[in-house]
Amino acid sequence: MPRLASHTDSVPPSGIRRIFELAQSLDDVIALVIGEPDVPADPATLDAGSRAWLADDTDYTPNGGIPELREAIVRAVAEHNGILTDPERVWVTNGATQGLHLAMGLLLDPGDEVLVPDPGYTTFTMNAHLLSATAVPYPLRPENAFVPDLAELGRLVTDRTRVIIVNSPSNPLGAVFDRPTMQGLLDFAREHDLWVISDEVYERFTYGTAHVSMASLAGAGTGDDDRVFTVFSASKTYALTGARVGWLLTPSGFAPLLRSAQEAMISCINTPAQRAVVVALTGSQQSVTDAAAHYRENLAEATAALRERGIRYLDPAGAFYLWVDVSYASRGDVAEWAERFLLEQRVAVAPGSAFGRMGEGWIRFCAAAALDDLLEGIRRLPEPPRTEIRLVRPDEYEAVSRQRFAAYAHDYEIGGEYAENVRAVEMHATVAEVWVAVDSATGDLLGSVTLPRPGEALTELGREGELEFRLLAVDPGARGRGVGRQLTEFVLDTARSRGATRVVMNSGTDMVVAHRLYESLGFARMPERENPPGVEPTRAYGLDL
Amino acid sequence: MPRLASHTDSVPPSGIRRIFELAQSLDDVIALVIGEPDVPADPATLDAGSRAWLADDTDYTPNGGIPELREAIVRAVAEHNGILTDPERVWVTNGATQGLHLAMGLLLDPGDEVLVPDPGYTTFTMNAHLLSATAVPYPLRPENAFVPDLAELGRLVTDRTRVIIVNSPSNPLGAVFDRPTMQGLLDFAREHDLWVISDEVYERFTYGTAHVSMASLAGAGTGDDDRVFTVFSASKTYALTGARVGWLLTPSGFAPLLRSAQEAMISCINTPAQRAVVVALTGSQQSVTDAAAHYRENLAEATAALRERGIRYLDPAGAFYLWVDVSYASRGDVAEWAERFLLEQRVAVAPGSAFGRMGEGWIRFCAAAALDDLLEGIRRLPEPPRTEIRLVRPDEYEAVSRQRFAAYAHDYEIGGEYAENVRAVEMHATVAEVWVAVDSATGDLLGSVTLPRPGEALTELGREGELEFRLLAVDPGARGRGVGRQLTEFVLDTARSRGATRVVMNSGTDMVVAHRLYESLGFARMPERENPPGVEPTRAYGLDL
Repeated sequence: MPRLASHTDSVPPSGIRRIFELAQSLDDVIALVIGEPDVPADPATLDAGSRAWLADDTDYTPNGGIPELREAIVRAVAEHNGILTDPERVWVTNGATQGLHLAMGLLLDPGDEVLVPDPGYTTFTMNAHLLSATAVPYPLRPENAFVPDLAELGRLVTDRTRVIIVNSPSNPLGAVFDRPTMQGLLDFAREHDLWVISDEVYERFTYGTAHVSMASLAGAGTGDDDRVFTVFSASKTYALTGARVGWLLTPSGFAPLLRSAQEAMISCINTPAQRAVVVALTGSQQSVTDAAAHYRENLAEATAALRERGIRYLDPAGAFYLWVDVSYASRGDVAEWAERFLLEQRVAVAPGSAFGRMGEGWIRFCAAAALDDLLEGIRRLPEPPRTEIRLVRPDEYEAVSRQRFAAYAHDYEIGGEYAENVRAVEMHATVAEVWVAVDSATGDLLGSVTLPRPGEALTELGREGELEFRLLAVDPGARGRGVGRQLTEFVLDTARSRGATRVVMNSGTDMVVAHRLYESLGFARMPERENPPGVEPTRAYGLDL
Repeated sequence: MPRLASHTDSVPPSGIRRIFELAQSLDDVIALVIGEPDVPADPATLDAGSRAWLADDTDYTPNGGIPELREAIVRAVAEHNGILTDPERVWVTNGATQGLHLAMGLLLDPGDEVLVPDPGYTTFTMNAHLLSATAVPYPLRPENAFVPDLAELGRLVTDRTRVIIVNSPSNPLGAVFDRPTMQGLLDFAREHDLWVISDEVYERFTYGTAHVSMASLAGAGTGDDDRVFTVFSASKTYALTGARVGWLLTPSGFAPLLRSAQEAMISCINTPAQRAVVVALTGSQQSVTDAAAHYRENLAEATAALRERGIRYLDPAGAFYLWVDVSYASRGDVAEWAERFLLEQRVAVAPGSAFGRMGEGWIRFCAAAALDDLLEGIRRLPEPPRTEIRLVRPDEYEAVSRQRFAAYAHDYEIGGEYAENVRAVEMHATVAEVWVAVDSATGDLLGSVTLPRPGEALTELGREGELEFRLLAVDPGARGRGVGRQLTEFVLDTARSRGATRVVMNSGTDMVVAHRLYESLGFARMPERENPPGVEPTRAYGLDL
């Protein structure tokens, strides 16, 4: 046999589809895996699709869609998104999926690079592979509130980088980028001369932070800096996933190229579906309002249930997804865990790793579901570990000493005087307080932190009215279940109860994991408390209570 | 602005679309340009699409299509095409167009080459450009009855050639390849280790020569030599172009790859359209039978009208197109001529050059139209040049002599005794007959041929009961308007009227244009009459009357 195109070797399988197909082979599954609205579509819209069939309205349409639909889209994006465009810049596609494929195909040569969000919609990466291009994931980190770090993004740009894909509201996160973030991303694209593909299919579902369309930002679509392609869809907005109607908004001047590309790829999309979506866009928007209220209520109830159970999640600001941290149970392989969760608990959720490396340890619930199902799905999550924090006991000095050394040696080169200090649990417990985190169920020691006795100070770093903490350590085998965070929050609670107005600490410059944790909790750098030049550099942090 | 993908520079615009858009801007146009059925769709099919919308049957389907549709396709290709397949090898696509794009995308790396028919469906070439691959046209020549020449095909294969696209019944030609031709093409693909993409969307419309599916040929789809991808469609068969339902049949083992590719490109196609096509495939096929009868009748009437007017065409054996030679009027730029024909005569037809270089001088009529429109479109074609054939007059000896020499010298190296003979018009008119073709309107001499007087022989080549002809020549400036053919047909008519049972002739081995003409008229080689080895080689031809 002849060989296939080489890019076919690397098209990654979908980790969501694996769960979906397994779920279909089982009974009594609570299905929260596919991103599909559970609300009915607008009856007038359905009626329009139905009537088009009865009228044998089944001829080819123009490549870009029927004029009525393109004009309705122009009016809708003006009204809802603040985008001024014209019908020749609107291309009706087979769902946003095909709009994305089309845009990526026009902008990427084989070997080019495209920046894709991680975690992000799997199709971004799959399309890059299909086009023999390279998807370069840019991390969206929990400690950065899932917002891209522009400095980190900048380090990912090479001379082959041509496109950045932005997705807000985000699938799978439910995060919504505010205006400064969107503007920052557009400025970033300008600085590096990149195209932007903005996936905004969840545009109409936000809960607090308003959706900002990239193409509405100054200059984005006005000719002088016309670099934004946007994909939209009727699928989520109008609960019409199977109608397969999306639209791609382009900068000006692309019509001849898009016409040829659509002619070659699909010719045009289904005609009755185009008639239906004209009605969806121009008729009553009550079904959209109802759907948004339904998702919002589901998300509110679901996040309350997660809080109640002490399970960490990203507070959803848009779309209809819930991004939940199950790293306490998934132990580094959430894809395998999700499969087991389905087989044993009969709940189908999307493993976070399907959306990129940064999704390891997380799962995505689709909240476009019956509320009872959603709450039952959450109820079936495994019990998060309960951690008790108490003063170290003398019979634990030796164990805590070993654990503290192991924790520091796991990540850093330590030795000499510092290593001695790390091991000196008995001394610290005598002149100060050593607090330990213990698994309530097993009694296992998980980590520890050192505080001064009330009214005293640990070192000269802590000043009047401040509480200093030191030597926070987590057993390497207990990482990823939030022990460090719990110990830090315990320190904050203790400081409050002792009347302190600020918590401070000092650390080595290389302890970046700890720095991220502190920053995510609101600590700020205090350069004035750090070692002066010439001495070993340190990083000091403080949090005003 | 950043640059676009480099392949976008070379995506060719569609010469059909230009005519189509110009036609839409004019009144009273007879539209015969787009390949779209003019018959109504089956009412039960339309009803099924309508009911799916009313039932809000608008959810995502599996990437490959709903199981009922894939199973109906398996049964249909078994019944109509003799193809044994299974649902996992059937991929429902957004029309055959997207099936083609999908297959080409999986089989072609950037820089790879794909053999495409010329003339052929424009989308083959457009997709190659989109995929940064190279379309290599293989000629379908009128003198070869529009069947590919395998020897010529073989010379086009390089180490980058990966795919051959075969299209029968053909758009734009209406040609149908018989079983030996299809088998020959499959054997060719095997010999050169190429994939085959067989575009069979006109499968159900043939008029005489039965359609043969490439994948039904021994070994094509049975695992041991599984190299055939086939695209089919509901668009033409069921008059549902705007439903956008096609299907791609693949060799076995491709399901995981196709699933990922469809997920990334389009996710799936419109759900109600899938429900409708289940009914189309499994319900009454009367509408297909009726459509075929309608196209057949239109083609029969249209070809009669063309014959009546003396305009050359390819006798259509399938599809609903009519391939007509207007080189007598288009003078080397049929795209420009088609535009003028539309503007001046208000008839929209597709210029043959839109389908490849070999289409220059031809136009495509779509016969899926009202018969009156089709006949009126033919009526408005310009008058073909009338050619009168009569004996040369003495005052023309000098002119015919010059013309005969110019005609031979245009294509061949001639000199010496042979050149003298070519010039010797007076002598030939004296001992035999020199017939000239003259433009009835202008009186211009167009060409000539030499015959023996009745009852005599020209040379020893002609035997008892045979008529020999010699020195057939066409003015180099009058090429392409059928003068050579008319002179040869005049010879055949003359032979019949004189009671000859065979026409014979001899020629140089390098006179390949003439050989093609003779072969296309049914002449066969007569090696036993050719010069023996050692003497200057010749080619002898004969046609039994």
